[in-house]
Amino acid sequence: METMVVSNKQVIFRDYVTGFLSESDLLINSTTVNLKVPAGSMTALVKNLYLSCDPYMRNRMRKPDPSSPATALSFIPGKPISGFGVSKVMDSGHPDYKEGDLLWGAVGWEEYSVITPIPNLHFKIHHTDVPLSHYTGLLGNVTHFNVLVHHCLPYTFLCSLAGMPGMTAYAGFYEICSPKKGETVFVSAASGAVGQLVGQFAKLMGCYVVGSAGSKEKVDLLKNKFGFDEAFNYKEETDLNAALKRCFPVGIDIYFENVGGKMLDAVILNMRPHGRIAACGMISQYNLQIPEAVYNLWLITYKRIRIQGFNTIDYLHKYSEFLEFVLPYIRQGKITYVEDVADGLESAPAALVGLFHGKNVGKQLVVVSRDP
Amino acid sequence: METMVVSNKQVIFRDYVTGFLSESDLLINSTTVNLKVPAGSMTALVKNLYLSCDPYMRNRMRKPDPSSPATALSFIPGKPISGFGVSKVMDSGHPDYKEGDLLWGAVGWEEYSVITPIPNLHFKIHHTDVPLSHYTGLLGNVTHFNVLVHHCLPYTFLCSLAGMPGMTAYAGFYEICSPKKGETVFVSAASGAVGQLVGQFAKLMGCYVVGSAGSKEKVDLLKNKFGFDEAFNYKEETDLNAALKRCFPVGIDIYFENVGGKMLDAVILNMRPHGRIAACGMISQYNLQIPEAVYNLWLITYKRIRIQGFNTIDYLHKYSEFLEFVLPYIRQGKITYVEDVADGLESAPAALVGLFHGKNVGKQLVVVSRDP
Repeated sequence: METMVVSNKQVIFRDYVTGFLSESDLLINSTTVNLKVPAGSMTALVKNLYLSCDPYMRNRMRKPDPSSPATALSFIPGKPISGFGVSKVMDSGHPDYKEGDLLWGAVGWEEYSVITPIPNLHFKIHHTDVPLSHYTGLLGNVTHFNVLVHHCLPYTFLCSLAGMPGMTAYAGFYEICSPKKGETVFVSAASGAVGQLVGQFAKLMGCYVVGSAGSKEKVDLLKNKFGFDEAFNYKEETDLNAALKRCFPVGIDIYFENVGGKMLDAVILNMRPHGRIAACGMISQYNLQIPEAVYNLWLITYKRIRIQGFNTIDYLHKYSEFLEFVLPYIRQGKITYVEDVADGLESAPAALVGLFHGKNVGKQLVVVSRDP
Repeated sequence: METMVVSNKQVIFRDYVTGFLSESDLLINSTTVNLKVPAGSMTALVKNLYLSCDPYMRNRMRKPDPSSPATALSFIPGKPISGFGVSKVMDSGHPDYKEGDLLWGAVGWEEYSVITPIPNLHFKIHHTDVPLSHYTGLLGNVTHFNVLVHHCLPYTFLCSLAGMPGMTAYAGFYEICSPKKGETVFVSAASGAVGQLVGQFAKLMGCYVVGSAGSKEKVDLLKNKFGFDEAFNYKEETDLNAALKRCFPVGIDIYFENVGGKMLDAVILNMRPHGRIAACGMISQYNLQIPEAVYNLWLITYKRIRIQGFNTIDYLHKYSEFLEFVLPYIRQGKITYVEDVADGLESAPAALVGLFHGKNVGKQLVVVSRDP
């Protein structure tokens, strides 16, 4: 059996996390890996190029609790964490996956991963005239996510996926929000991986769009780069209700929810009758042992508001439709996508932790290797 | 001008209410009324027979607050409160409303009301082979609710209507819950005006149905009279989450929400993926100055739960369809409707207050006069 053993840096999960995630919950370790797969094996050895930093990953760090779907598949202490990434096949025993193939799918947070691709379960990257890094965000998708990474991921894990920002923005806005031209749209975490796209989709449709973000730099980005009509820094607003009333004198038709908690409470007060809330995620809640309270829910009856939690996994059949829609806009520069790239696996823990403090400007990713 | 002045007992709204409604917030007073309408007037003089006691009325007792749609039309201190009722026309200047007509619509809480019916704005009762009292609940409907009672009700008031339990149960269950045979259904306030019907509709569809209520008597009613598969007394459960897990080992597909607060929080924990919550009302919240907190909302993303606030006012075009559906079932005894009848206007304040303490068993109404 051919062997070619090299060192393999990994980001190790120390132990289950309560409270705010900190960098010390993750350790950088080095092991070795054989770049050649055993003869007759159906596995592939991939070199990881880009890793996606996604808020849902925090929920996989909770101690497993059978009563909570958010912990259906927690990371295993002592093992590398895993997520979505762009990788390149170095060797493969699988006839459908060849050396040199570029893939998008689940990989470990490490330099090299051994994966067991089953036909149609890993997504091959065909369009390489756009930045490869976009497949961690804007263009990412997994057709049927049963990928085997170190261990087999059960179906329940599907419920806790949120690592396909482009498809998430597309399905969430067009399928869940039922948008109409001229409606008013509010997006929280608006400069983030999903928010920046939702805002641009809403503008393309002729909506009035306002975003919230956590710094002046991000607010400027929203107004000047993504074309939002208005934007505010939620950290500088003492009264979120007042901020929303200022931006939406006639109220909000559509809220694309990425944060939860106090913002959701203030939004409900400002929703118009028959308003729609697409609950894409609630990042403000993931590090809390007791989630923040929402008090104004009783108003949804009076306002006939629809709140719809959703997950891209239910819309994966729309991926080719999405690509046809979005690729021309990207090539024409009508949709822009801002990424925040952390360099090297050593910077990965800080990049992931930074998500929950709003340090990233745009989609957070880690570049493990710029080759190819 | 012909006159026939008689005494007119009224239930007077003392002042805006904060905290729990008490009987002393309402006063019984007597004034006089002319049973003959002035010549040339388009008004009608009606004798009130049955009055409907509805949870939403509590929200009309709040001090008007332009920022809250729930107080869009508060009652006026010193004036009688108003609501839905069955009445009989005694005299009418309006060509379409004749002496002896039985009506269902908005009236004051008093023995006689002067109303200004505009064609198609008051509902005439045609089917009198079912108890007239059912029109305060099971069969009640108002086609376009702009009825003028003492003062003109603006459109915004439509948002705070919830006085049509039959239509509410029908639209809420069939239109909002997207029910399928074999699904699991939970109904709170299940023996109430709306809940008892939702449970029976769900059983007719072949669902597994569980209800919660606040006394042993009500729990017995759910199981023995309305045919629920299971029922529990929420006041005797120290852990609502555990009670729901016991009744729904595989989780809840549909929750028909009548109470809000802690129950909603526990239900979210037990919802299955793609579950639906029809937010019909949240009676547990209406007397609170600060509504109860809901903590588990962030889980709706993982479970892809839809929460839909709704109001019957958006489904009034389905009223004749509803009548065609429900009348045969009533006549065949396949749907039963339990009413809790308080005798006389003097007992009206206690009946209304009792709603918020769960004193009523079934739909609460007040009989003002059994004639005809």
